[in-house]
Amino acid sequence: MPQTPQPTDAQRRHDTTLRGFASDNYAGMHPEVLEALALANGGHQTSYGEDAYSEHLQDIFKQHFGPQAHTHLVLNGTGANVVALQAVTDRWGAVIAADTSHINCDENGAPERVGGLKLLTVPGENGKLTPELIDRQAWGFGDPHRAQPQVVSITQTTELGTCYTPEEIAAICDRAHEHGLRVHLDGARLANAAATLGLPLHAFTTDVGVDILTFGGTKNGLMLAEAIVVLNPTATRGLEFLHKASMQLPSKTRFLAVQFEALLAGDLWLRSANHANALAKRLSDAVNAYEQVEVLYPVQANAVFATLPKAVTERLQKRFRFYTWDENTGAVRWMTAFDTTEADIDAFSAAIGEELAAQ
Amino acid sequence: MPQTPQPTDAQRRHDTTLRGFASDNYAGMHPEVLEALALANGGHQTSYGEDAYSEHLQDIFKQHFGPQAHTHLVLNGTGANVVALQAVTDRWGAVIAADTSHINCDENGAPERVGGLKLLTVPGENGKLTPELIDRQAWGFGDPHRAQPQVVSITQTTELGTCYTPEEIAAICDRAHEHGLRVHLDGARLANAAATLGLPLHAFTTDVGVDILTFGGTKNGLMLAEAIVVLNPTATRGLEFLHKASMQLPSKTRFLAVQFEALLAGDLWLRSANHANALAKRLSDAVNAYEQVEVLYPVQANAVFATLPKAVTERLQKRFRFYTWDENTGAVRWMTAFDTTEADIDAFSAAIGEELAAQ
Amino acid sequence: MPQTPQPTDAQRRHDTTLRGFASDNYAGMHPEVLEALALANGGHQTSYGEDAYSEHLQDIFKQHFGPQAHTHLVLNGTGANVVALQAVTDRWGAVIAADTSHINCDENGAPERVGGLKLLTVPGENGKLTPELIDRQAWGFGDPHRAQPQVVSITQTTELGTCYTPEEIAAICDRAHEHGLRVHLDGARLANAAATLGLPLHAFTTDVGVDILTFGGTKNGLMLAEAIVVLNPTATRGLEFLHKASMQLPSKTRFLAVQFEALLAGDLWLRSANHANALAKRLSDAVNAYEQVEVLYPVQANAVFATLPKAVTERLQKRFRFYTWDENTGAVRWMTAFDTTEADIDAFSAAIGEELAAQ
Amino acid sequence: MPQTPQPTDAQRRHDTTLRGFASDNYAGMHPEVLEALALANGGHQTSYGEDAYSEHLQDIFKQHFGPQAHTHLVLNGTGANVVALQAVTDRWGAVIAADTSHINCDENGAPERVGGLKLLTVPGENGKLTPELIDRQAWGFGDPHRAQPQVVSITQTTELGTCYTPEEIAAICDRAHEHGLRVHLDGARLANAAATLGLPLHAFTTDVGVDILTFGGTKNGLMLAEAIVVLNPTATRGLEFLHKASMQLPSKTRFLAVQFEALLAGDLWLRSANHANALAKRLSDAVNAYEQVEVLYPVQANAVFATLPKAVTERLQKRFRFYTWDENTGAVRWMTAFDTTEADIDAFSAAIGEELAAQ
Repeated sequence: MPQTPQPTDAQRRHDTTLRGFASDNYAGMHPEVLEALALANGGHQTSYGEDAYSEHLQDIFKQHFGPQAHTHLVLNGTGANVVALQAVTDRWGAVIAADTSHINCDENGAPERVGGLKLLTVPGENGKLTPELIDRQAWGFGDPHRAQPQVVSITQTTELGTCYTPEEIAAICDRAHEHGLRVHLDGARLANAAATLGLPLHAFTTDVGVDILTFGGTKNGLMLAEAIVVLNPTATRGLEFLHKASMQLPSKTRFLAVQFEALLAGDLWLRSANHANALAKRLSDAVNAYEQVEVLYPVQANAVFATLPKAVTERLQKRFRFYTWDENTGAVRWMTAFDTTEADIDAFSAAIGEELAAQ
Repeated sequence: MPQTPQPTDAQRRHDTTLRGFASDNYAGMHPEVLEALALANGGHQTSYGEDAYSEHLQDIFKQHFGPQAHTHLVLNGTGANVVALQAVTDRWGAVIAADTSHINCDENGAPERVGGLKLLTVPGENGKLTPELIDRQAWGFGDPHRAQPQVVSITQTTELGTCYTPEEIAAICDRAHEHGLRVHLDGARLANAAATLGLPLHAFTTDVGVDILTFGGTKNGLMLAEAIVVLNPTATRGLEFLHKASMQLPSKTRFLAVQFEALLAGDLWLRSANHANALAKRLSDAVNAYEQVEVLYPVQANAVFATLPKAVTERLQKRFRFYTWDENTGAVRWMTAFDTTEADIDAFSAAIGEELAAQ
Repeated sequence: MPQTPQPTDAQRRHDTTLRGFASDNYAGMHPEVLEALALANGGHQTSYGEDAYSEHLQDIFKQHFGPQAHTHLVLNGTGANVVALQAVTDRWGAVIAADTSHINCDENGAPERVGGLKLLTVPGENGKLTPELIDRQAWGFGDPHRAQPQVVSITQTTELGTCYTPEEIAAICDRAHEHGLRVHLDGARLANAAATLGLPLHAFTTDVGVDILTFGGTKNGLMLAEAIVVLNPTATRGLEFLHKASMQLPSKTRFLAVQFEALLAGDLWLRSANHANALAKRLSDAVNAYEQVEVLYPVQANAVFATLPKAVTERLQKRFRFYTWDENTGAVRWMTAFDTTEADIDAFSAAIGEELAAQ
Repeated sequence: MPQTPQPTDAQRRHDTTLRGFASDNYAGMHPEVLEALALANGGHQTSYGEDAYSEHLQDIFKQHFGPQAHTHLVLNGTGANVVALQAVTDRWGAVIAADTSHINCDENGAPERVGGLKLLTVPGENGKLTPELIDRQAWGFGDPHRAQPQVVSITQTTELGTCYTPEEIAAICDRAHEHGLRVHLDGARLANAAATLGLPLHAFTTDVGVDILTFGGTKNGLMLAEAIVVLNPTATRGLEFLHKASMQLPSKTRFLAVQFEALLAGDLWLRSANHANALAKRLSDAVNAYEQVEVLYPVQANAVFATLPKAVTERLQKRFRFYTWDENTGAVRWMTAFDTTEADIDAFSAAIGEELAAQ
């Protein structure tokens, strides 16, 4: 039953052919997701998570993460992390995390302010934690003067575009569990990791000991939806209450659920991630040809970090949107998305060449 | 440039012809809103509020609320209230509110937990505050033992379906300002109030002294979007930071902005509100004919509260979705929405008659 | 081994013969408490609760509250309440309390701001809760929109100088436990209750089902010390961590412990409470003789609340220190302390008579 | 008017001749402080900071810190820091601090949990910040994704027993102020710094740009009292309310004030600090003679950090109380206090020699 397009007072206000490399959340939603929204529209459905789409979505997530998985849909990535972390910590708990992590750098202190969480940070290696790095902060248990370490938080893929192997995550989970800590995984770009690893989602999460994760939809082509996925139900407390009390409970949940259904019922999630990853690799390969460009980290997802002459960066930024990542070093970040095209990459790498040549 | 529908793996899982009276957020999104989402899709747009739709939306809100109005888009009503209230209070501030208010009853303590806010409640009259009720809590200024009253929060239309007149709001604002307090208005159903009053939105907000309000989109036919509207810019501090730190900043803001454009650029907001209000009135008129039904509050928006025999309620709830509002008194709440039809009302009121007769 | 008084650069700056009726915390410390401080001085003792005095104090509290009692010493009454309440609630918990309670009125929102607690208040009867009043807020269990009731908080003696009977507390505890709620007792003036009831401390706390209480030392003649006493160890979580994280852990705990030892090892606590109560009764009896004075609540502790002509209050306040309790009604509060004398009372009641006559 | 010692039910439970090197808060109170407590006792005095001692104390602090100084008395060091930091930050503020700082390591996350503060840490140099270290975190102003740096927090003397020069603090303040940041100084051992520097207290605080500090009394021989001293009144907001709302307002403030009067009206503060510092130096000099002992940081206050063979540490700890500071490196910390004697030091250093020889 197709829905007749209905004239709206809103107007198109942007050029739908323009794309850049600033962020995967500069992209819109995948057309299949828009179709899904239409499907879920019309009629009345119970709100706050008790609609037919949300209920069915539980099964879809179980297919990806195992039969014990339970999912809560939330509104953005910061909310997903902070609700999930509260569910595995007490009021006196602390979170061991890489200093480069999103929860430490990019959430305006929401973990501290909303969750009352103490972050115990260590300098990551290419954005990653290791068992040894965990040990640096996993101490002081029982000492009331020390915020009690209760959870290790890792990001997959990392903020630096690198990807943990399943073995690396297993080692982290083992060490964390030995210390009596839970493991939280910030999966804002988890699909990209699965694409890189060529593995099902459970293989490097549930199967290796992750207790709770957040699964990013928005950066993988949804309009707006993130998921908290509990992998170890004995690890969490009060998620349904924290969900609401932390202001992350949407009302018309059918529209979040159906977006995830569009993503995860078939292979849209993987198609999009593979696509974005491949184009990041294409870009990385192209710029590696330029002597004055240094790619900074292994390109294992949809991000390329590089240094190039600052003057070149400045001229390039007038032609293409992207961010300087570190003002001091001049490092830049280039992101690809589900809608980036080969032509986009080729035009951009050619432009880099031109600007380098113009030096 | 119409977008070709793209096959999605998601499936329709509900009967699009079924509607009830449980909540205005059981309805989906208005078809014009879905069209607007399609318009805003494609290409890249800056995220976090700097897209073309968000920028244009500032003008649209100014048209409704005056040239000094400034808008921040957020993710749900609870988030809207808690961010707005933090922006007009210090860490030691308190909020004077009706005991029936949403911030006091339905947000799982988010004002307290996220904002550290103390609520000073008074028993409302039909859900409303008055200057005299404000006076009951507006004292103790300068006394460090007392949470300092800094803002009065009212709801328009109220949680009981009643509507303040502009004069009533003006009197509240005057009294609040005399005490040095700000006025926050929870406008989850502000459109319904405008429809009832037959007045432009600014006439009973900006013009009478409200300092900051939240404007509800979701209950008026959007998929998911709420707005914080600052009416008195000198009254607030740090909204842009509180927005993020309270986890209410969406990334792909174009999709929230374009929904509001669909709502507010033309008259969709008013059409929908008028429609819902009229059907609540139709229902109220119909049930008033039944002796055993008592309508509890003036029906001034899209809600009807009533008492009827509990056995009747039970049988009715097997046929139509609606909530018992108060288990003790047996009061029920019937909500209408933009998509409720006259036939829906007539069938429902007929059913009420049948069940009453079957006693 | 007496300690030789040592000349100090501090000077006496007040008249040690002046006393008033403003508050029991206007009094200093009982001379026996000062002696105890001297005893505990000298040499080194482990800090943060592991000194010999703190350890021995556990036994003393067990003698009063039963063998399962466990005590944590804190710095003030607000801190005692907020730490104790956190120990019996989750992050999503709410506290049912009387609207007149100290936690609701006099702690500048510390329960909300520090503990993230939601208070669900009901109008108390002479400052007291009842099972029926608890029922008014003990609902909505499992509903994520409602802050989850998890504890009932009562005050003994109440903020209005009234005293619960053991039967009343038992009924409250039974009802609370039926609902799955814990019972917290704010015992800032618990000694006064024991004196009024003529019962050991456990008889109206541990024995009737209270789960956790705070025991006030400062208002009963200590310099500075309050105690949290866990009566039901299965009811609390994380007290040792909340103690520190809520900034209520003193370093030189020997000096707090020895004060409580001075109070509770013998009968100082009861002598002082009996004394203060008796003088409040003496005052109440005296003013009952005046027709224009109305005593407002049963005088069951060391407080007398009364109304008298405002002009009389004003003139009296120039001669004696006491507080107007309610600006609207003109109600005043007169407090007695361990050091109030019969002569103080007689002079004061005579003065009241004089000022009434001077009308 | 001497106070007659009054028999108390408390008993002496410790050996007043035993002292160790574990912490300066293992010491009791200076006998002059005990005398001061006796002076302030008796009669009634207004509570909550409006007593004669608290009022006079304002003048005493002004003498040390300048005429604009304003003081609030609080209950412990953690409370002092967290209240002070809240007074110079907004809800969205962040604190730049050394990773070794007390606020980061030893307060169980109270800054985060009570104040909602984000800590931005940098690796200190011997416990100190520098302008360059501040620059590493002083960026992202205006970016809502980043917790906004608003204050730099330094500790004098540092947690590692080192002492900033006035020039070093001036440089930090200048850099902080250039960035628009305030400067908070954790002065738990500020007296020891003055003793080391041979300067009045204002010379390296007020005079060089510190905005707010905490002044430690307890570690310098008080029983229990800390002070927040506002040096730049334009820098703070709401201290009187934060004081109470953060549960740091004592009731019988006369007893805290008179302790500080005993400390600061004359030279007790400096005598005690000079004494403790000198004995730390004596210990440091003594152990420097042992080849197997390495003193780790410049000994500029009352702490000596050293490494020595672990077996030696273990045997020594059976004879004298002191802490292992770092389990990994085996570093130990030895603290001196106002009551440490030369004989204590000599016995201890001799014991170290014996245990080293017994290897």
